[in-house]
Formats: sequence, C-alpha cells, structure tokens
Amino acid sequence: MERRPVGRGAAELRPVAITPDFTEMAPGSVLMRMGRTAVLCTVSLEERVPAWLRGQGRGWVSAEYALLPGSTPTRTAREAVRGRQQGRTVEIQRLIGRALRSVVDLERLGEHQLVVDCDVLQADGGTRTAAITGGFLALERALERLAEGGLVQPAALTGRLAAVSVGVVDGEPLLDLDYDEDSRADVDMNVVMTDGGRYVEVQGAAEGAPFAKATLVELLKLAERGIGELLERGPQLA
Amino acid sequence: MERRPVGRGAAELRPVAITPDFTEMAPGSVLMRMGRTAVLCTVSLEERVPAWLRGQGRGWVSAEYALLPGSTPTRTAREAVRGRQQGRTVEIQRLIGRALRSVVDLERLGEHQLVVDCDVLQADGGTRTAAITGGFLALERALERLAEGGLVQPAALTGRLAAVSVGVVDGEPLLDLDYDEDSRADVDMNVVMTDGGRYVEVQGAAEGAPFAKATLVELLKLAERGIGELLERGPQLA
Amino acid sequence: MERRPVGRGAAELRPVAITPDFTEMAPGSVLMRMGRTAVLCTVSLEERVPAWLRGQGRGWVSAEYALLPGSTPTRTAREAVRGRQQGRTVEIQRLIGRALRSVVDLERLGEHQLVVDCDVLQADGGTRTAAITGGFLALERALERLAEGGLVQPAALTGRLAAVSVGVVDGEPLLDLDYDEDSRADVDMNVVMTDGGRYVEVQGAAEGAPFAKATLVELLKLAERGIGELLERGPQLA
Amino acid sequence: MERRPVGRGAAELRPVAITPDFTEMAPGSVLMRMGRTAVLCTVSLEERVPAWLRGQGRGWVSAEYALLPGSTPTRTAREAVRGRQQGRTVEIQRLIGRALRSVVDLERLGEHQLVVDCDVLQADGGTRTAAITGGFLALERALERLAEGGLVQPAALTGRLAAVSVGVVDGEPLLDLDYDEDSRADVDMNVVMTDGGRYVEVQGAAEGAPFAKATLVELLKLAERGIGELLERGPQLA
Amino acid sequence: MERRPVGRGAAELRPVAITPDFTEMAPGSVLMRMGRTAVLCTVSLEERVPAWLRGQGRGWVSAEYALLPGSTPTRTAREAVRGRQQGRTVEIQRLIGRALRSVVDLERLGEHQLVVDCDVLQADGGTRTAAITGGFLALERALERLAEGGLVQPAALTGRLAAVSVGVVDGEPLLDLDYDEDSRADVDMNVVMTDGGRYVEVQGAAEGAPFAKATLVELLKLAERGIGELLERGPQLA
Amino acid sequence: MERRPVGRGAAELRPVAITPDFTEMAPGSVLMRMGRTAVLCTVSLEERVPAWLRGQGRGWVSAEYALLPGSTPTRTAREAVRGRQQGRTVEIQRLIGRALRSVVDLERLGEHQLVVDCDVLQADGGTRTAAITGGFLALERALERLAEGGLVQPAALTGRLAAVSVGVVDGEPLLDLDYDEDSRADVDMNVVMTDGGRYVEVQGAAEGAPFAKATLVELLKLAERGIGELLERGPQLA
Repeated sequence: MERRPVGRGAAELRPVAITPDFTEMAPGSVLMRMGRTAVLCTVSLEERVPAWLRGQGRGWVSAEYALLPGSTPTRTAREAVRGRQQGRTVEIQRLIGRALRSVVDLERLGEHQLVVDCDVLQADGGTRTAAITGGFLALERALERLAEGGLVQPAALTGRLAAVSVGVVDGEPLLDLDYDEDSRADVDMNVVMTDGGRYVEVQGAAEGAPFAKATLVELLKLAERGIGELLERGPQLA
Repeated sequence: MERRPVGRGAAELRPVAITPDFTEMAPGSVLMRMGRTAVLCTVSLEERVPAWLRGQGRGWVSAEYALLPGSTPTRTAREAVRGRQQGRTVEIQRLIGRALRSVVDLERLGEHQLVVDCDVLQADGGTRTAAITGGFLALERALERLAEGGLVQPAALTGRLAAVSVGVVDGEPLLDLDYDEDSRADVDMNVVMTDGGRYVEVQGAAEGAPFAKATLVELLKLAERGIGELLERGPQLA
Repeated sequence: MERRPVGRGAAELRPVAITPDFTEMAPGSVLMRMGRTAVLCTVSLEERVPAWLRGQGRGWVSAEYALLPGSTPTRTAREAVRGRQQGRTVEIQRLIGRALRSVVDLERLGEHQLVVDCDVLQADGGTRTAAITGGFLALERALERLAEGGLVQPAALTGRLAAVSVGVVDGEPLLDLDYDEDSRADVDMNVVMTDGGRYVEVQGAAEGAPFAKATLVELLKLAERGIGELLERGPQLA
Repeated sequence: MERRPVGRGAAELRPVAITPDFTEMAPGSVLMRMGRTAVLCTVSLEERVPAWLRGQGRGWVSAEYALLPGSTPTRTAREAVRGRQQGRTVEIQRLIGRALRSVVDLERLGEHQLVVDCDVLQADGGTRTAAITGGFLALERALERLAEGGLVQPAALTGRLAAVSVGVVDGEPLLDLDYDEDSRADVDMNVVMTDGGRYVEVQGAAEGAPFAKATLVELLKLAERGIGELLERGPQLA
Repeated sequence: MERRPVGRGAAELRPVAITPDFTEMAPGSVLMRMGRTAVLCTVSLEERVPAWLRGQGRGWVSAEYALLPGSTPTRTAREAVRGRQQGRTVEIQRLIGRALRSVVDLERLGEHQLVVDCDVLQADGGTRTAAITGGFLALERALERLAEGGLVQPAALTGRLAAVSVGVVDGEPLLDLDYDEDSRADVDMNVVMTDGGRYVEVQGAAEGAPFAKATLVELLKLAERGIGELLERGPQLA
Repeated sequence: MERRPVGRGAAELRPVAITPDFTEMAPGSVLMRMGRTAVLCTVSLEERVPAWLRGQGRGWVSAEYALLPGSTPTRTAREAVRGRQQGRTVEIQRLIGRALRSVVDLERLGEHQLVVDCDVLQADGGTRTAAITGGFLALERALERLAEGGLVQPAALTGRLAAVSVGVVDGEPLLDLDYDEDSRADVDMNVVMTDGGRYVEVQGAAEGAPFAKATLVELLKLAERGIGELLERGPQLA
C-alpha cells in the first residue's frame, strides 16, 4: 500500500474538489477535480432532439468529451485539426451519455436535448469517470435551473450516480487509478453506480492476461466503496 | 421460455455454423453464423506494425468491423460514403482487437501486424460477439499457416476464447439475444472468456433502469455456459 | 491458348456459380462467383429518391461497390478508414448503376430507390463485370418480390443484361481475364450487353500502347460470346 | 442537320481556338476553346513520383480536372468547400491521365511527375475531351521546354493524340456535342485517338436505351473524322 | 527606387488590364490583371440565402477564392484533393466578402445571394487585393444585368471600392508589391477604400519586427494613392 | 458613457484577472479573464518544427484556438464533430501565432516548436485579443522554464506585447468591447502592440458602412491606452 504516491491507501480516493458554476453561460457548470485530473463539465440546452426522436414529446441527454491539447505532458493533437474524433473519444462520450440517461426521466424534458460537455483541462487518469461524476452534478444543477425557468418539468432525475475506475496494479486491486497506475494496470475497470446501489455500467477489460472471477468480485467491491464516498459529497454541493 | 422463436430455451444458443476457409486469399478466413447473423472474418498479415511499436521486435493484432449495407432489413449507409466510421463501429473494433490480443503472445509475431476484418454479411443481433468468436477461429487458422510458412513463431496463442451476449428481456435473463430481443432488453451484456474460465471482457450496461447485483451474477453465469459450448465446438473445426 | 490456367481456352469463361438468396434481409441477394472472384450483390429498397428527382413519380437505381479488406492477397485498406471512397470505386459504381438503369423502366418503380450493393468478398479480376451480372440477377429477384408486395409495378425490367471483361494479353485477345492476366494486359475492355444483342457500355482503354481498329472488333466479338453464355444461364436461375 | 445552332453540320466541329502560353508560371499552358467551352490546361513539374514508383528511374503523368464555380449557368459548388472531389471529377481525371500516358515514354521523364491541370473556365459540353486535347498540347510544350532545360530527356512523346465526343441526339449521330445536345443524347461516347489512327480510349454509354452495333460503328467514324481535324491543327500551333 | 523591376517607382501600380465579360455564363465576369497576377472574378446568383438570413427579405454577398494549381511556379496542391480549404484561403474569402458587402444595400437584393468567385489564374503577389478590385467590378456588372432582368432592385451599390497592398521592403514603403517584394517585406498591409475616401478594411501586420506609427501613416497614404488610381479606371470600364 | 454596463467608461478595460499556472502539465499555463471572457492559454513544447523549417536550426511558434461548446449562451458545436475548423477559427489562430512570433527570436528556440493553445472557457467578446495577451504571458513563463531546463536558449523574447479590441458603437469609440457591444459595432478593430509602442497587428473592418480616417486615428489611440495598461500588469505577474 505504500506504493501509491502521497501515502494514499489502496481503497482511498484522490483528493476531490468540486467547483460548481465555474462558468456561467451554460445552465449547468462544474469543475471536477480528482487529484490532478480536472474536467470542466457544462450542460447546455438545445431546442431540438435527434431526428429519430422528433415528435414523440420526449427529450434526450447526450455527452461530448475532449482532451484540451495542453492537458497532457506531451501535447495532445486537437481533434478538430485531425478532422475527426478518435475512437477512444467517441467510445467515452457514448459511455457518459448512456450512463447519465439511466437516471433521467426523458419524458420530463419535453422535446429538448441536454448536451453535457466534458472538457478535460488536465488529464492524470480517470478522466472518463471524473467526467461522469462531474457531468452528473452539472446536469443536476442545470435541471434545477431549467425547471425553475419552466423549460423542463421538475424532478426529471430518477436517481443520483457517480463513477470510479478500479484496477489491478502489480497484483493489487486499487481504487481510483492515476495515469501512472493506469498505464501499468493488468485489469482496468470502470464502474458507474446509483445511490441505490444498482449498476449502471460495468466495463472491465484484461489489459494483459485474462483475469479470475475472484478479481472481478474484489474490484466491484472497491468501486462500490469509492462511489459511495463520491455520492455522499455530492448532495451537499448541489 | 416459450417466448423465444423456434422453441429456443433461455439458456440456449442459436444454431451455430462455422465455415472455415470461406475465402482463400487471406491466410485465415471463417464464415461465422449464429442464427441469421453471419460474419465473414478474414485475417491478413501486414509487414508493418503501428508507429508507436516500431523497432521493438513485437507484433500487433488489430480488428476492423463493418456492416455490409444489405445486411439489415433497412439498408445501412456505407461508412465510406458518410466519410467516417461511426462511434459504434470504432467501439466494436476496439473491443474485438483488445479481446484477441489477450490470448496472443505478441513477441511471437515478430514485427508483423495481423488485421482481423469482421464484415457482417447479415445482422440479427450479437454481431460483435460473433465477430470475436469467428475472428478468433480465423486468427487461429492464420497463425497456424503463417507459422508453417515461417512468418511468425509457432504457438503464438496463449489460450482460446469465445464471446456471447446475454441480457434481461421482459424480466428474464437470456443467452445469445437476437435483434428483436436485443432491442427490447433492459440490460445488455457482452462477455468474452477463455477456455480456462477467465474473463477477458465484461461489458454490461443498463439500457433502461440500473440493475441489481444479483442480475449481474445471473448474467455472468449464463454467459459462461454459452461460451463453454462455443469453445467445445471450436477445436473440432480448426 | 495453353497459357491460361486450368486449360481454359481464350474464348472460355471461368466457372460460374450463382447462389440466389445468399442472405435474406434484403429483397434481392445473389452471391456471384466467376472463378475465384466472388461478389455479394444485395438490393435494398429506399423510400426516397435523390433530391433532384423528387415529386416526379419516378424511381431510381443506384449502385455501390467495395472490396472487403481481406478480398485481396495483400490487404486492401477499408475506405471508411481512409475517410473517402477512392476514384476507382466511384467510377465502378457509377458504371454499375448506369448499366442497370438502362434496362429498368424507372416510371414503374414509383418514388423508390433501389440500391444495388456489390461487395467483393474475393477479388481475382473482373470484379466490376461480375458485379454488373450479379447485380442484375439480384435486381431481377428484388423487383419480382417487390412487385408481389405491391411496392413497385410489375414488369419494371425492359430487358436482361450481363457483362464481361475482355483484353489483349501477350498479343492474344482473351475472354474473362483473371487478375494475373488483367495486370499484364495491353488493352482492357469491359462490355455490357442486353439479351437483344445491343450495347449498354463499351469501355476500352489502352493500358500500354494505343490499339488498332481490328483489335477493337475482335474484342467486341469475344465479349458478345461471353455475355451470351452468361445470359443463357441467368433465366434458369431466377 | 439544320437542328444544330449556327448552322453547324452533324459532322462539324465547333469553332476551335487554341491560345498557347496563356499563363507563364507553369512550363506548359494552353487555353483550349471549342465553341463556348474553355479549358485552361497547365502542366507543372513535380520532383517526386507517386510512392509506388519510387526508385525505378521512371516518371509519371497525372491529371486533375475541375469546373470553376462560375463556369456554368447555375453556379457549381466548389469541391474544396464540399470537402472532396466528386465521382464524376475523379473519373474524368483518371481518363485524362491514362490517355496522356499512352503517348509518353515514361522512362524519358526520369523520376519526375508531370501534372496536367485542366480547369474549366466555361462549360458548354465536351469539357473532358477538350481537356485531353488541350492537355496534350500543353504537355507537348512543357516537354519541349523541360527537355531544353535538361530536366527530362528529349523526344519523350511517342505519338500525338486528340479527343472528341460523339453521340446520338434525336436519332442522329452528331460530332462534338454542346451541353444542350449532350443533355438530350441517347448515346454518349468519348473517343481518344492518335495521329496514327489507333485507339487510346473508347467510352460509349447508353444514356437511354441500349444501342445497336451499327450505331457504334457510325459514331466511331464520326469521332475519327473530328480527331483528324484537331490533330491537323495541333502541329502548326506548337 | 531603381530596385523595382521594369523601372517601376515606389508609388506606382503595376500595369493594370481589365477584361470585362471574359466568360459569359455568369451574370458578371471580369479578368483582372495587375502585372503578372491574373484573377478571374465571376459573380453568380443563388436563389437562396444562408440559413440564418432566411425570411428576412434581405440578400447576401459572399466570396470564394482559390489558386489554380498551375498559377504558381511550384504547383499548388488543389484544395479539393487535400479535402479542405486552407486557413489562408478562408481568411482571404472572408475578407473579400466582408469588403464587398460594405458597399451593397442588402435589402435591394431580395432573398438572393450573390457569390463572387475569385479564381487566381496566375499568382504574382497582391492576389487578394486584385480579387477585391476585380470582384467589385464583376459585381457592379452583375447587379446592373440582374436589375435589368428584374431579379434585384436597381442601385443596390452604395459606393465603389478598390484595394491594394502596400508594404515596407528593404526599409522603403512600396505600393502594389509583387511576389518577390512581398516575400521580403517587413510590413505587409492590405487596404480597401471607397471612392469617398473612407476605409473598408485596414489589415497591417509585422512580418518581421513590429513597426512604428510613422510607418503606418506612410503606408496608408501610399495605399490611398493607388486605390484612387484604380477607382479612376473603373467607371470607364463598366 | 453611462451606456456601458457596471458604470464602465468608454476608455476603461473590463476587470482583468490573470491566474498563472492554472494547470501544471504544460510548461506554460495562464487563465486569462477580461470581464466574463475566460481563456485558458497553455504552451507546449514539440520536438519537431514544421516540415518547411527542418534542418535550419531555428524554431517556430504557432497557436491554436477553440471555443469550448459550453462557453457561449447558445451551445457552440464542437469543431471536431463538424470535422473541420471553421474559417473564423483558422483566421484567429493565424493572427495569434503571427503576433507572438513578432517578439520571439526563433533562432534561440533551436529546432523546437512552441504551440500556444488558447481554449476559450467562456466567451463574452474580445476572445482573440485575450488569447493574445494571455498567450504571451503563458509563452513568457514557458520560455523561462524551458531555458532553465536548457531546452531553449535564454532571452528568446525580443519584447513584450498585449492586445485589445476597440470599436465604434452607437457612434462612440469604445475600448475593450464585450459581446453585446461587439455585435452592435459599426467598426471593429483589433490591435496588438509592444511595450515599445510599436504595432504588431492592426486589423480594422467596417461592419456596417465604411469609416472615416479620423475614426481610425481615435480607435488607435484608445487601443494604445488599453494595451499600455495591460502591459503594466503583466510583469508583476510573470
């Protein structure tokens, strides 16, 4: 356990800092920090839903994700310059959107789309789970304000959620991996859970060799613990 | 259980048909059918590895995936015409490649890349897991031939694997969902396991409401059963 | 004449194998094989015609063509990954569409578009002419079914057609070139003809030096013979 | 015959005007006019050949083609704005390049590429054949100058060529169709021939119904006559 | 002052040659030459305005700009082949459009868009200012014709304008830089002015070191002189 | 003057807040706020210079600019999703790069490229000038650190600079326009100046009618005053 930097325990989260309303143009905005990872999550309202949903009186929640070029020690090329989003980006934003939709009653949005933008200002591992946790908090604030303004119905959330990464590094299961740990991990798992203790997403992958069932069980336990802590903090904030 | 078409039980696979060497230009080729789903998997050898791997004496395995336009009842637009691969496509081919690499000793490939192309001739649910199972069988054949030709070292595989989808439909856990079942599923999970009973990938997502831990456990059990059956068939074939 | 593989004569087609209904999602589907060349032709119905044709009560027939990556001994890069269709591809699919439209009464389609997808599973020369011949057969089946379903008017075909390649290799005019012959050809010609013995397309090009008028005449004669044979087989099939 | 504008006969070319050295930055430049069709053809030298040709000591000739937006009565969208060249464009420039290469001894170019740019300043039918004829003349001039400068070997041309369109309009075979005639044509054919009376390209297509063999013969005769006239003019010019 | 080619003085324009109606398909067309720089400016009418302007009864003027590949001593790659317009191109066409709109009463255009295409046939410096001057003249002619045809209201122009480049080369302020001068310039400025002596655009940039206020004043004076000369010529022409 | 919000005078800057080292992965990072406009400027080092500069022992400074989607009241579509950077973006980043290079001795960078990323977290007018001012400060910090690390030579800056926007709104010249003022401006000008009082860029454009010379003079005076104030603050910070 003494392996982790700054004396962090295997089952301990990095320091979490949440700044609500970091910007004020969008109805919801949260700057989410977990250790050195920092993600600016903003939630915007769009008048129109995707084409396949039109005329059904229901809304939609989607997400977009990007690394700012200067967020990494070696500069990350801007996707707008490459001309397309990379596979990893698309996979992450599909995950964020799907997770957030699992706790939204889309009927209560009317024919509106909420777009959750997760822009990583600094990347030190766990950016996708920080984006889900921060994106949820920004969504919660945005829905409150939009309901006050009468743009969506109140109580559109059916639950609260948070996300963490867990993994096996040097044979040891760890909670909330930083970049250095993540790049050495044998198993890498992202878990999204609700405050009711139910699963929204479980995505585990063998980075090296396939892993045993017992490992799966242990990692799920660690994740539950971390998500519980994040959810405890949330309500005070919002 | 009488809900499934053709009297199939909840824990039963669809009819599986595997045609090795369906084409003969590529060193490995398998036409994989599960029910009406049909995926042509071919494995090609490329002389060069991705840029970040050059000069390390190791090889790489990557995958590409596509739906043929006529594979679906409503024609699917060709991605080359849209000008880019869709997010779903990229996510699937990242999954296939990552899964296959987990049972390959990359050192034994030398500086070669094996590209596993999974082209869906007909899509009736479970295309990504059929692609993994069929892709593995085509890879197995290709590695054998390439080893005979001295292009890669023998015994590059460290295990065998297969994949299935499982899900909860109308409250009931089911193995190997067809398209109709998949589109009504509340929980959708893809599992990849080895013949040693270890996990390679576990990807479960709540399509509707978040799901309980007990559900996760049940689905994993069903998946293990289906994968076991697929792995039993494999060796006879190859 | 002993030059051709498997004792094939200069005026002889490769073995032809036609599998109707190879897939069953699209209204028309034919697996067309000429020697080792194999093209899966499917015909889908789209509700809408191109923009410039709207509101005229007429339909359209268009074609798309692609090589599967594993169809060639050296893997062919996927066009969706490159981000665009290559010039050769676009030229071929324009040819296929134009040829098929020449025997369709577009008024009888109503405001529908039939898209003929020609996906080359294995490429050993003559893929564009195999695509036209196979595409025609798939179109014939699709029109029959769609007419039965009342979606298009019956008897929308005004004729039947087939296509072959011819060329001059080592000074000798040959029918139905395989890849090896095609790559050594001095003159390369694709011909599409109807069962009434009329021309739909004649596309001849000097690959090396310009060619004499007598050569043009000889090649047209060979092509007519090959097309006649293909057309004789067709009706039995459909 | 009185059908054609300005009393032109069925076998008559439109007025031809050739302005050599219309611009002076590129080694070869010709403004080619046939009636109202005007194509600026410039030939540039590039130091490097395509990748697949490197190190063989041979050169290459390629062509590019574009319509200026203001060249047509209804503005043509700029392909750079659409983000890609259209299929028709790519097909035309492949034709131009292939035709020009048929009379060039590529060994004599050294490892250089000559790029023939054909930019249509005004489009009134027959732009692709005007581009071939004008492109050849610009190439002839460029090769002369480059040979004088010692950049390519002298006498790199193995022949001279020109091109015309022919077609059947209202049942009558016509030489050198303008836009109005072309859009009403039942058969449309482009022919490229050398001064030795040999064929370089023959591309005939039924626009409406398939056409008879006698029609093919007549059209080839008309084309030969037109090409002969164009080739007579050429040498005086260059 | 003896530094400039052909004995041109520091405050002297290059020879100007304006060919109205160089092409005749578009309602306005001008071939604008300043020295060796030649820009073909055509003005086309489009029935529809940009989306954000619809339903307001007003029109729009936009511009597009391109270098033909053969316009430069070293061939310039075609932007349609690269797949996108370069930054420099977009910047220039935004400038041209903005400048021309400053002297057009958009209400008088009705819901039409005038597109001013500036295609550089030969580039020897000052192409963007030649495009503005030539584009204005083509626009003037087009508006006259369109007003005659009743498509736009008469007197849509609120003024006349022209543009020149000025710069500091080897410490000396110069009017109307050619390519060679421009590439050695320390300060580079483009100025657009009306016949009323008012500014439309002033774009000055230090290419090397930042420049003094006195330099700015001198350059503006030179530009005014050159623009005055160009505007004197214009009316005779149109 | 009472027109401006919060009692700001016509010649007064909005409140300026500069946070150095807002992130810590990149060698230089500044969060620049002017009123509600907030731009995160990071400076990264790249080992390689653009192709045309290789082997000359000199470095390069370039800039990239983007609006985060949630930075504006109505969400701005992500350019990576559209597939390309818009014209406005490219024009702005060319301006930023050119301005910064005017005060850098490129010889002192060795063969390195410094990329200045300006990501707008919140946009309320003047983002491009805030990006230049903030980008300069981030560059200053980065050069200091890189010189300490021996990666570039010390004293690579030849001066300091800052930028402001000025404009004419409702007939009155104003310093540092916010979004609301900018959208009503008749004249819009961006000015970049050094601490030595020299011009780096002057970009003035008539948004409505062309403007008089006296207006140009007044605006330049206002800009100089604002830039002076910004430059006074800078050194304390860095």
